[in-house]
Amino acid sequence: VERRDAQANRAKILAVADDVFGRGGETASTEEVAKRAGVGIATVFRHFPTKAALLEAVLVARLSRLREVVEARHDDTDPGAAFYGCFRHIVADAASKIAIGNALMDETDEENPAVLEAARELRRSFGVLLDRAQRADAVRDDIELPECYAVLIGASRAPVDGEVRERSLAIIFDGLRPH
Amino acid sequence: VERRDAQANRAKILAVADDVFGRGGETASTEEVAKRAGVGIATVFRHFPTKAALLEAVLVARLSRLREVVEARHDDTDPGAAFYGCFRHIVADAASKIAIGNALMDETDEENPAVLEAARELRRSFGVLLDRAQRADAVRDDIELPECYAVLIGASRAPVDGEVRERSLAIIFDGLRPH
Repeated sequence: VERRDAQANRAKILAVADDVFGRGGETASTEEVAKRAGVGIATVFRHFPTKAALLEAVLVARLSRLREVVEARHDDTDPGAAFYGCFRHIVADAASKIAIGNALMDETDEENPAVLEAARELRRSFGVLLDRAQRADAVRDDIELPECYAVLIGASRAPVDGEVRERSLAIIFDGLRPH
Repeated sequence: VERRDAQANRAKILAVADDVFGRGGETASTEEVAKRAGVGIATVFRHFPTKAALLEAVLVARLSRLREVVEARHDDTDPGAAFYGCFRHIVADAASKIAIGNALMDETDEENPAVLEAARELRRSFGVLLDRAQRADAVRDDIELPECYAVLIGASRAPVDGEVRERSLAIIFDGLRPH
């Protein structure tokens, strides 16, 4: 039971931390996470010894969830819809991911191997969608993953949402489609 | 003479600070700026009372220089070349601008009116290029400045350079051109 409680606490802390640090701003602190998760600060630090460790776990979990979304569409019968749908999904997810990434950079100047590996796996997985979309003639076949992913990351970092984001994606998608 | 010396010092400090903070990283400090400008730290603080004030001046100067580049092409005889050329120039200039912007965000959580105004002026100025390029049929006429500028900012924040940046701009430019 104790072990199950610990696991439940860990999951709860991660979910709350994703929300708190994703939103960013002044109140984003480990104390705030503990308070909103209904546990003591000591419990947070038992699971995540440093704020950087907590942020790393949050970011890795986010990147893993995105990869799962992408992988779920690897065998989609409409490869074009899978590619453009996941492109849009990643961009929409990114606003809060950036806040978390910035928070992590504040905490540590070291490269973060776990985050880098999770980011690399997401990229590889997205590359499968690109490949299938190109074979289905939904994306120009002279485009390669590095530049496609650079445009995706850029779109993820543009400080817009709603209709303007949709209209900026329309420009990018038009550039990706064959003419 | 004293006043002229003071002005020369200020200009020198600004130029060095642009380089030091533009590069980012561990050694980016006011001390490093003073050392490389060949002045005492007290001289730096006489001109710029806080690190935030120095970073603000650097960022405003950068945005103003970009606006001058854009304005110099307002009457270009080839509005398409002016638009796409300035788009590329702003993106290429941005890598170090981001380091400075991040450094500024570390220093202060307040909105920064001088930086915001300089950024707004750059955007307005770029809007003139967009308008002329659309009249010359070099950019699709159903595109408006907000989404065009969102794509520009995104491209400026994509962590790539060299050939991959060029190939990612090719995707975006293809999406901006009429078909």
